[in-house]
Amino acid sequence: MFGITPSARLRPSPFFESTVKEGVDSFTTYNHMLMPTAFGKPDEEYWRLINGVSQWDVACERQVQLKGPDAGRLAQILAPRDLSMQMDGQGKYVPLCNHQGVLINDPICLKLADDLYWLSIADSNIWFWAGAIAAERGLNVEVSEPDVSPMAIQGPMAEDVVAHVCGDWVRAVKYFWFRETEIQGIPVVVQRSGWSKQGGFEIYLRDGTKGAALWDIFREAGAPWGIGPGGPNWSERIESGLISYGGDSDSTTNPYEVRMGKYIDLHVPDDTIGITALRRIAAEGPKRHSLGIVLEAGAPVKPGFSWNPIFKDGRKVGDLTNVVFSYRMQKNIGFALIDSACAVGDAVHAQVGGVMQPAKLTDLPFL
Amino acid sequence: MFGITPSARLRPSPFFESTVKEGVDSFTTYNHMLMPTAFGKPDEEYWRLINGVSQWDVACERQVQLKGPDAGRLAQILAPRDLSMQMDGQGKYVPLCNHQGVLINDPICLKLADDLYWLSIADSNIWFWAGAIAAERGLNVEVSEPDVSPMAIQGPMAEDVVAHVCGDWVRAVKYFWFRETEIQGIPVVVQRSGWSKQGGFEIYLRDGTKGAALWDIFREAGAPWGIGPGGPNWSERIESGLISYGGDSDSTTNPYEVRMGKYIDLHVPDDTIGITALRRIAAEGPKRHSLGIVLEAGAPVKPGFSWNPIFKDGRKVGDLTNVVFSYRMQKNIGFALIDSACAVGDAVHAQVGGVMQPAKLTDLPFL
Repeated sequence: MFGITPSARLRPSPFFESTVKEGVDSFTTYNHMLMPTAFGKPDEEYWRLINGVSQWDVACERQVQLKGPDAGRLAQILAPRDLSMQMDGQGKYVPLCNHQGVLINDPICLKLADDLYWLSIADSNIWFWAGAIAAERGLNVEVSEPDVSPMAIQGPMAEDVVAHVCGDWVRAVKYFWFRETEIQGIPVVVQRSGWSKQGGFEIYLRDGTKGAALWDIFREAGAPWGIGPGGPNWSERIESGLISYGGDSDSTTNPYEVRMGKYIDLHVPDDTIGITALRRIAAEGPKRHSLGIVLEAGAPVKPGFSWNPIFKDGRKVGDLTNVVFSYRMQKNIGFALIDSACAVGDAVHAQVGGVMQPAKLTDLPFL
Repeated sequence: MFGITPSARLRPSPFFESTVKEGVDSFTTYNHMLMPTAFGKPDEEYWRLINGVSQWDVACERQVQLKGPDAGRLAQILAPRDLSMQMDGQGKYVPLCNHQGVLINDPICLKLADDLYWLSIADSNIWFWAGAIAAERGLNVEVSEPDVSPMAIQGPMAEDVVAHVCGDWVRAVKYFWFRETEIQGIPVVVQRSGWSKQGGFEIYLRDGTKGAALWDIFREAGAPWGIGPGGPNWSERIESGLISYGGDSDSTTNPYEVRMGKYIDLHVPDDTIGITALRRIAAEGPKRHSLGIVLEAGAPVKPGFSWNPIFKDGRKVGDLTNVVFSYRMQKNIGFALIDSACAVGDAVHAQVGGVMQPAKLTDLPFL
């Protein structure tokens, strides 16, 4: 494993010191922040998420705040999904595209009020993007990065822990809906969300000086359920079919290629960015699609930094974007971003670690 | 030191395998790529740059390519510096700003032809930015990321090495000027540039499959001069007064605050982004400026992930953005982004590693 050199270009999160105390040993970078990825006990970290409750520093899921009379108008211009019926307190998953219909991020859009939205973003710079569009269109809206840092509580026991801290009202919160509240005087937003399919909540800390305090509240409250540290889990998220923007997509990927078509509303206003291109792509059908892929060989593969080419009948037909050893399937699995002519059940070869490996295309999610 | 977890969101460079062979042990991330920062021998790496010649993988200095009839027009709209006299083969350092006059990147703008420009960028997403502006203004220009990856040859002996490989014509190349050429059949651009003040060149590789070959050509050619691996050097660059966008600037910094005022031309056309704000800031005078700061205590400080607050007479007056131990000064030095009322010679305190340390404000560069 290579080390990561400290630099003020890469910001620590408000939970940084807490994760150091928990024994964090590696990070990835995400929106120019450090995101903890491993605490030295990968098996424990995986099974805690599947069977118990896991606590994650995901402060790197930053907020692009749209504030002002035209906040809602800007949100709709940016998002090729119909937001006209979105309620205060409701979040919606929105693939953002550029003018060519290429995916540039896939945030949750939180509507806090008619004049206040947050885009809780994946790993690309949407402040610049939204700021450019707002200014060029002369909208009356301020685009900024507020002092807001999510922490995730994930796993089948997450609801019990969050209810214990916040009250039983959280049990009634629907997926992606949220409420503004306080936890022992710390201002937060509590949302049912998180980058796993094991259930849980994200607690958006609204005061960056209170990271350690908030961390400890959940650490202590979760002790009876065996809470412990973790992070977005590579094995679980691929088993669950969760796409990572920028990792499973590239600079030409459109939402239809990565199973996001159901979040596109082609009837949104014509001034929505990318909608003309998306209507054309929807009519023509995308050239690639996203399938699962299972390697036949059993020896666990470690994730790498590069995509792995996929071949069929000796011809390159796509890429295995990320590959991981699945704990529950006991096989190497990943996502194939692949020619639309390829189908579930097809036998292919994937070149992983320089070796051609026989593999099979599958449906998603795996589990 | 924390480890960095592999993920396809973070791309390796074409020189990745070569730097692994050279013994790279740590990286930073930059434009979603890995940039080698250390090879396990910090003293050797520093002095090689100061006294000899050093070879760097700076492929992460990506190119934002503007191609088409409106390429020059877009470049000028993006850059608050007069590009009207820029010649083919000339590079110009250009602070890019948003509509509020806030610095969003500081690339070198290379003009390859009237319809072809590259912005060789620092660490922020200018593809989205330039793409948004081009589309919103209806310009006839394509914004893309070409297959171009710089490698730097830096140090007082760099010119001898590059002349040995490319020919003596390189000795006549002026600062930031460049030429398109081939090295043993590998297409490159050779430019006099690089993120140090020790002199040298950047070789822009134009075929990502040839990284190892190009690396080895310079490694072998440079052997008589004692060439060896390195990277942008934290100690040298601070001694030399080189600003790191995103590390020494924040989301409110304008170019005048970080000694970039001389690269702003207030007479550029009114449709240049940010120029109205920059004219106002220039007239009013910036609220902060950038000075050197020297800590009085001698124990070497290691760079961290955060800014360090600076106090004067008990009041916070600014931030020590990055701090490093200077090999040549044998003191801890850094940049102060500080209230314009503070001046060279002022005694202040900087809170570094939780400890209040007496310090003095100085001129820049240090050396």
